[in-house]
Amino acid sequence: MGASGYAGGELIRLLLKHGGVDLTFATSRKNAGEYIFRVHPNLRGMTDLKFSPNDLSKVTEMADLIFTALPHGESVKFMPQLVSSGVKIVDLSADFRLKNPADYETWYGYTHPSPELLEKFVYAVPELNRDEIAKTSLASSPGCMAITSILALAPIFKQKDVVVDREHVVVDTKIASSGSGGKPSLSTHFSERYGVVRPYKPAGHRHTGEIEQQLSGLSGQKVTVSMSAHAINMVRGILSTCQVFYEGDIQNSTVWKMYRSLYSGQPFIRMVKDKTGPFRLPDPKVVIGSNFCDVGFELDERGHRIVAIGAIDNLLKGAAGNAVQVMNIMLGQDEKRGIYDAPLHPV
Amino acid sequence: MGASGYAGGELIRLLLKHGGVDLTFATSRKNAGEYIFRVHPNLRGMTDLKFSPNDLSKVTEMADLIFTALPHGESVKFMPQLVSSGVKIVDLSADFRLKNPADYETWYGYTHPSPELLEKFVYAVPELNRDEIAKTSLASSPGCMAITSILALAPIFKQKDVVVDREHVVVDTKIASSGSGGKPSLSTHFSERYGVVRPYKPAGHRHTGEIEQQLSGLSGQKVTVSMSAHAINMVRGILSTCQVFYEGDIQNSTVWKMYRSLYSGQPFIRMVKDKTGPFRLPDPKVVIGSNFCDVGFELDERGHRIVAIGAIDNLLKGAAGNAVQVMNIMLGQDEKRGIYDAPLHPV
Amino acid sequence: MGASGYAGGELIRLLLKHGGVDLTFATSRKNAGEYIFRVHPNLRGMTDLKFSPNDLSKVTEMADLIFTALPHGESVKFMPQLVSSGVKIVDLSADFRLKNPADYETWYGYTHPSPELLEKFVYAVPELNRDEIAKTSLASSPGCMAITSILALAPIFKQKDVVVDREHVVVDTKIASSGSGGKPSLSTHFSERYGVVRPYKPAGHRHTGEIEQQLSGLSGQKVTVSMSAHAINMVRGILSTCQVFYEGDIQNSTVWKMYRSLYSGQPFIRMVKDKTGPFRLPDPKVVIGSNFCDVGFELDERGHRIVAIGAIDNLLKGAAGNAVQVMNIMLGQDEKRGIYDAPLHPV
Amino acid sequence: MGASGYAGGELIRLLLKHGGVDLTFATSRKNAGEYIFRVHPNLRGMTDLKFSPNDLSKVTEMADLIFTALPHGESVKFMPQLVSSGVKIVDLSADFRLKNPADYETWYGYTHPSPELLEKFVYAVPELNRDEIAKTSLASSPGCMAITSILALAPIFKQKDVVVDREHVVVDTKIASSGSGGKPSLSTHFSERYGVVRPYKPAGHRHTGEIEQQLSGLSGQKVTVSMSAHAINMVRGILSTCQVFYEGDIQNSTVWKMYRSLYSGQPFIRMVKDKTGPFRLPDPKVVIGSNFCDVGFELDERGHRIVAIGAIDNLLKGAAGNAVQVMNIMLGQDEKRGIYDAPLHPV
Repeated sequence: MGASGYAGGELIRLLLKHGGVDLTFATSRKNAGEYIFRVHPNLRGMTDLKFSPNDLSKVTEMADLIFTALPHGESVKFMPQLVSSGVKIVDLSADFRLKNPADYETWYGYTHPSPELLEKFVYAVPELNRDEIAKTSLASSPGCMAITSILALAPIFKQKDVVVDREHVVVDTKIASSGSGGKPSLSTHFSERYGVVRPYKPAGHRHTGEIEQQLSGLSGQKVTVSMSAHAINMVRGILSTCQVFYEGDIQNSTVWKMYRSLYSGQPFIRMVKDKTGPFRLPDPKVVIGSNFCDVGFELDERGHRIVAIGAIDNLLKGAAGNAVQVMNIMLGQDEKRGIYDAPLHPV
Repeated sequence: MGASGYAGGELIRLLLKHGGVDLTFATSRKNAGEYIFRVHPNLRGMTDLKFSPNDLSKVTEMADLIFTALPHGESVKFMPQLVSSGVKIVDLSADFRLKNPADYETWYGYTHPSPELLEKFVYAVPELNRDEIAKTSLASSPGCMAITSILALAPIFKQKDVVVDREHVVVDTKIASSGSGGKPSLSTHFSERYGVVRPYKPAGHRHTGEIEQQLSGLSGQKVTVSMSAHAINMVRGILSTCQVFYEGDIQNSTVWKMYRSLYSGQPFIRMVKDKTGPFRLPDPKVVIGSNFCDVGFELDERGHRIVAIGAIDNLLKGAAGNAVQVMNIMLGQDEKRGIYDAPLHPV
Repeated sequence: MGASGYAGGELIRLLLKHGGVDLTFATSRKNAGEYIFRVHPNLRGMTDLKFSPNDLSKVTEMADLIFTALPHGESVKFMPQLVSSGVKIVDLSADFRLKNPADYETWYGYTHPSPELLEKFVYAVPELNRDEIAKTSLASSPGCMAITSILALAPIFKQKDVVVDREHVVVDTKIASSGSGGKPSLSTHFSERYGVVRPYKPAGHRHTGEIEQQLSGLSGQKVTVSMSAHAINMVRGILSTCQVFYEGDIQNSTVWKMYRSLYSGQPFIRMVKDKTGPFRLPDPKVVIGSNFCDVGFELDERGHRIVAIGAIDNLLKGAAGNAVQVMNIMLGQDEKRGIYDAPLHPV
Repeated sequence: MGASGYAGGELIRLLLKHGGVDLTFATSRKNAGEYIFRVHPNLRGMTDLKFSPNDLSKVTEMADLIFTALPHGESVKFMPQLVSSGVKIVDLSADFRLKNPADYETWYGYTHPSPELLEKFVYAVPELNRDEIAKTSLASSPGCMAITSILALAPIFKQKDVVVDREHVVVDTKIASSGSGGKPSLSTHFSERYGVVRPYKPAGHRHTGEIEQQLSGLSGQKVTVSMSAHAINMVRGILSTCQVFYEGDIQNSTVWKMYRSLYSGQPFIRMVKDKTGPFRLPDPKVVIGSNFCDVGFELDERGHRIVAIGAIDNLLKGAAGNAVQVMNIMLGQDEKRGIYDAPLHPV
């Protein structure tokens, strides 16, 4: 549902080639009746399906699992009825990510209309709570900058050996244009948007709430995140540069151990920390088209800080790719099915 | 063989996910002994294979089919020995594309050392000579700008109903940076290369010879092509804008018929000629990551010309993708196997 | 008048630094009352002027010369009144470029409401009709792709020694996004526009009429132009690649002579035809920020064609820069005043 | 001296149009004897000067003031002799920026060979020490990321009313390709460099030393800076996003006052902090081609931090533009002469 946006287009692309599921419908209020490939021109020749309207009674009969990729504030309107139908749901909106209703007032400026549903939805980062996802029928897929930052920082906040400053965690994100969707405006007009380094949200970005929630959960203590978000000159990709200050003296091997103990064997995490070459640390350029989250770090002993870095394709690990990964787990299928593609390079 | 270039990297990516073949080795003189993912950073986590040296006696024992992606002028040195081993070969270099030895003097400035091999290699465009490919064990994959232009123009030169001017065929190509390979130089230095519209070969481009050879073959008469090649601001993709002048009066439906009769049912050709939307005609942007060649045209009745347009991803339909398609046909496998991916959009 | 568009913004920038003129007002229907720097953010700190409304009676009293940069079809409404006021005018719209009223029906699809004014406006390309401009009080500045192509081709069509084919002149243009203005749409949405090679007008582009008019005038015989226009991945710049077929045999020196005889001493024409380096022929990358038109050619003796190439910054030599150059001539000032800037490189 | 690099090219461009100085020579070891416009193609038609060799005895006789734009570690070799000649010098290298010789060991890994010269060179940021510059004959122009960050942060560290955390100052910079110079390498190869968000120096960047030195000087107390540097997808421009944590509660007006009291009347500082529009905060896109440093901030009362933001064109305010501004002050000319250009927009 809500398949005419960029995340919706990626979902369709992934589901068409998945092999273990059938795509039975894709809804779009605006484009109902239109061929999907007219809206997602890459899918020309890949499907003759047309968009259908958002008819709740029909959709719950036509699917075992529904992806909801509606704008924030829209999912929440449909959800009580959808949930009551018993269908499995993976929600890509922000409407069920935060667990404390008060956080919706802080970060989104509205009173959540269905607070009783919040706890029913699992905030789904397979690398951190795979078992929980396997048991739920209601999953909420994280925000794109949130999942990048959370995966970059989780190993540091999950461990207990090194004491870190939980008050001054700085997250500086650089995001591509597709993260802001497909609706034209002066801000997204090519001549105005090309070549920018636009600090569009130096403070107060909504994903801050998700990151704080998850890091606080991992560490068992309140974590405050200082996030600044920048729009830069690309269409896909996110880099999240995170600064964590620590006490005492540590070594590279200590940090390596944090990351290895959490991420060994994770199919969609690649540790990147090389000594030579142009891609010594994570860079969105080499994850484009894949569901990988590349993770790396740099230790600054002089400044007593760890710079934790994460890179993803925002439409894949930051949206549709993670959602399909979550679906695979919920349906008991191979977690990698349909989404284990190598990135394109160069592109 | 010759797997450290961009076409080689794409071949490895495609073969790793193919399912119907095993990748047993990948050679690189320069990088022998190095992990493949150090050279092709997108393949990190996808394979632990290392590059091996170019040892002819070994490689023919290790494979039923070999892709040669060596620089022009290098393939030809190895080829007599490789051919005599009986192994199937798909050559991605220019060394066996032209059938008339004199053409190598015209377009490449050298005397071909093995002219007797030229006729043994099939110039492989599956959409035009699938049957011939199925029977050969030696195939030569076309140049990237050549295949784009040939596929855009073939329907016009294969038909006999409309008389076209064979002396004034203008081909204006726009190509991405990956087409010129991975070797740094001042011309490819980012600060100098970014944002260019560089008419780097307004006349005399080597692919002209291939286009003339194939169009002449299709039409049964000598065709002269006036080609101009431009490097533009992107990493992947080619657009070829071709001008053909015709005699008499024709209609859109006449031209549609030319294209449909040749391309109906071709899995990797998409006809693009819409009335609305940003992508009404072929544009490389919406084929990136796929093996599609998008083809379309515009009829200019006032100027008595057809503008034939083709768009591809130069590393796929222009190199590795077409090569795997050819391999599939040579091995009797499903032609689409391993390469029937939707393009990424937006990217 | 009409100063909120990109050409208007460049005009303001140039006039503020000109030294020989005072900018007394800048009108904008939509932004009247707003600070100019809110619309043209580069001008922050450079001027405190606000946009004023389009009040014809006032503007003719406030200026000796008016630039009209209104959308096509708008200039023509104001013009009779403006002209009758006696004020000097440089019009940047298309409304007075074509001299044959019938051409407006052919290329713009409307009946020109003031055909009697067409001959009063000089089609102003200083390099071709400087004297005429010096005597007029009404000038029409050419279309951006038209002036690029005209300047690239003029030397060939003005000479009489070499016979050229006037029926098959192919003009393939590559243009930046700012050429299509500042109004957002799906076509100009960054995610959809980035990385395109969009053949948005393979035939029928309106600038064709201007090019034919001027080349026919230069050669004294009817010239037919086959133009195809492409939008590519940049914000400023145009490259025009023009194919002209000739009879008999000629040499490089013959073509050089054509260009030198027309362009020697022209302050804003640079001949570019080097043997080495990344910028051997015209490329918009190295004219950005300047009023230069770089011109060069390649002779293809085999194909009996000259490839004539022109490159400009579409907002300068293609709009505001040429307009100020024309103003300088009309006012008897130094032609280079206020616009003789070096391009930026690299950028 | 050292005029074949990008900063050298910009210096030549600025000096040619300055009006108050004559450019008598430009040296280049590599390109001696070559026309300047062969190396800086934008300058074609602007000068017929050729590069001369680095002959110290000659250059000091040919100039009253010399710009040295040699690679780091090269300036220092020439400098004792140059200084002893009595000529005025503006050095663009890093060799005389740090005042404590030990800092060269920390940040550059070498023992400074002429430590006695360090104090003679004024670290020249006109907005902070104009008077000192006016009196010196030896100036050192700051590093590009250093000056951006220093100008963004200076108002906060110069004031005494609000107590800030001097241990956790985070500086996250995003820099264009021209900042790394004109020498080709795999890292700067277009296909590898295009579209990156490369965290090439998450810790240990050399400019950190300059920033700490200057902020410590302003505040009178030691300041520790945690800097991370990223290469992104553009040719010109720097954005520096700086996080400063403060004690107590403050308001927007408090921070405004810090900035206004330092920057009112500064010709090359523009405060950018708007409520609407795409460019509400500093963005390098709207300073390209100018010597402006755009400065703005966002107050995060929840996180007790100020996000201070600076944007420049790295080749102008980050190199050649600042150097000419410094020269103007040293020579007693109008500080704005030759460099008070509006940025280009859109570009």
